[in-house]
Amino acid sequence: MPASIPSPSQDGILQPTETGDPAADGRLFRRCLGHYATGIAIITAEHDGVRAAVTVNSFASVSLDPPLVLWSLSHTSRSYPLFKAGRGFAVNVLSSAQMGISRHFSSKVEDKFADIPWSPGEFGSPLLHGCLAHFECDNHSHVEGGDHTILLGLVRRASRYEGEPLLFTQGQYGVASSHPEASPAPELTGTSAGDMGTAYQQMIFSQLFKAHHVMSSLFYEHRRDEGISNSVARALISIYDKPGLTIDEVARDAYLGQRDVEDALASLRRRALVANSPDGRLSLTDEGRRLREAMLTRWKAFQDRQVEGIPEADLRATSRTLTRLITQSGFAA
Amino acid sequence: MPASIPSPSQDGILQPTETGDPAADGRLFRRCLGHYATGIAIITAEHDGVRAAVTVNSFASVSLDPPLVLWSLSHTSRSYPLFKAGRGFAVNVLSSAQMGISRHFSSKVEDKFADIPWSPGEFGSPLLHGCLAHFECDNHSHVEGGDHTILLGLVRRASRYEGEPLLFTQGQYGVASSHPEASPAPELTGTSAGDMGTAYQQMIFSQLFKAHHVMSSLFYEHRRDEGISNSVARALISIYDKPGLTIDEVARDAYLGQRDVEDALASLRRRALVANSPDGRLSLTDEGRRLREAMLTRWKAFQDRQVEGIPEADLRATSRTLTRLITQSGFAA
Repeated sequence: MPASIPSPSQDGILQPTETGDPAADGRLFRRCLGHYATGIAIITAEHDGVRAAVTVNSFASVSLDPPLVLWSLSHTSRSYPLFKAGRGFAVNVLSSAQMGISRHFSSKVEDKFADIPWSPGEFGSPLLHGCLAHFECDNHSHVEGGDHTILLGLVRRASRYEGEPLLFTQGQYGVASSHPEASPAPELTGTSAGDMGTAYQQMIFSQLFKAHHVMSSLFYEHRRDEGISNSVARALISIYDKPGLTIDEVARDAYLGQRDVEDALASLRRRALVANSPDGRLSLTDEGRRLREAMLTRWKAFQDRQVEGIPEADLRATSRTLTRLITQSGFAA
Repeated sequence: MPASIPSPSQDGILQPTETGDPAADGRLFRRCLGHYATGIAIITAEHDGVRAAVTVNSFASVSLDPPLVLWSLSHTSRSYPLFKAGRGFAVNVLSSAQMGISRHFSSKVEDKFADIPWSPGEFGSPLLHGCLAHFECDNHSHVEGGDHTILLGLVRRASRYEGEPLLFTQGQYGVASSHPEASPAPELTGTSAGDMGTAYQQMIFSQLFKAHHVMSSLFYEHRRDEGISNSVARALISIYDKPGLTIDEVARDAYLGQRDVEDALASLRRRALVANSPDGRLSLTDEGRRLREAMLTRWKAFQDRQVEGIPEADLRATSRTLTRLITQSGFAA
């Protein structure tokens, strides 16, 4: 089994990064929960002509027969009374193109449906356009669960669309990749046909995918060696590059969830890396800037080590090839 | 916003790939549910000296105060009586290195704990080693939900470890990548420091990540244009490459979930692409082989188009560079 993504616990010893009683430390609990990857769903409903929508990652399937799903709603949500009173809801599963929609519906915008394409669903709840799946539900039951209510829905209609899911994991938005032990597709391995391994045109793709996986793994190892979490590092870099951003702007710039950017900033403040700002605009302290610059130096040295011994002519040719692949297809680079 | 992963519904019109009443079509319901990405968790418990473990992707957070989580257990599960009778359970969130563990605990092996490193947890449930997170729970409540029971746990201890989560989405195991609109890390964009864009050593990484995203998107577009779902394509290719595999072996080979490989084979049989095999060993019909070969031809043509106009010397140099990046780091290629 290729060790493409090393697991430091492979020796069989339990060495947590952190552990504790979640009743005593809600942030620890959230960070641990973030290790379970999820999609993102917008739950919508309409009741007496008023529409509500909340962004959740607590959606889960329950039963096939009857078809039941669930999600959890905070008692402090402004939409709580509407969802309690309504007769159903729709689950809108977001695609990778809809990170902006996720942020929009978790923001404090007054009329969240104003500038978003949607249609009324057949079963009474708004359906957002561009989603990857819709589940139109009647209320099945409400179950109290601590500071949230669990809403079970009987699914009246399920629909799916082409696309890739939006992911949320370890505080960050992302997309799914094929497992590194697999190729992204068997076509890319070159094992499918004996004559595939000979043409350069057909090796490049396979190699590009493998090299990406290897370099991703090495990058995350490098990050771990820095002793700083990925979300804290991203927030630090964002504020270094663009001083004066608000916390919401840092979240967008660093592709972090709202709570995660708050946690990251709390951590940066504790270490006196971020300056206090009366106007809510963020900047680094001298020590914050020094840390970021030291990280950059180590990152450059890391990159240099990876390409050490590769002739400069080959690196130039590789750069030309990759540039062509990036730009020729009409995709933004 | 770069359209790195195109969404065919971006025009605002709802055009489902499929839609229907999930009460009438359980497979449709499962395929739609598969569009919501999840992690994978093994739920473990011990009661009267007997241990149980089930693989689920229905884990979800419920409440912060008190700390509650939930998951759903089928009434037909062999472990159902034990989980109902026990006083708690542990949630073991799998890392990307643990796909084999996921399969092991969803198999019919008699003593699932025999060859797997684990330790007894402080709160009575086994903890599997190498996981990304553990939630040690007392039973909070059981709620009936159709053909499943929803088990709510009060989390007594939460722990997290270094690593990347194992993902399950659209029937396939995978890993998370940074969002394509973001770089995998700000370090990789070359925007962090003005002097980074000049050295080839430091452009290669940024370009490699961008080229990977662009080529991934183009690959999935190509797959869609084939009019065949990803899991069906993977099963077809696996059986073409390795005739005589059992269905479990195809699942492993194609990185598909158990139900998804069953659905894919049902689809291949309906289209008479897979031959009937009394001994459970799978092979393609002539028509199945012809389809796979036609896909291969179109895939080669697609690859040729992507590199068209790039000088062969550059492609050779790129291939050399990527090979070096893949092999030098001690990672298996």
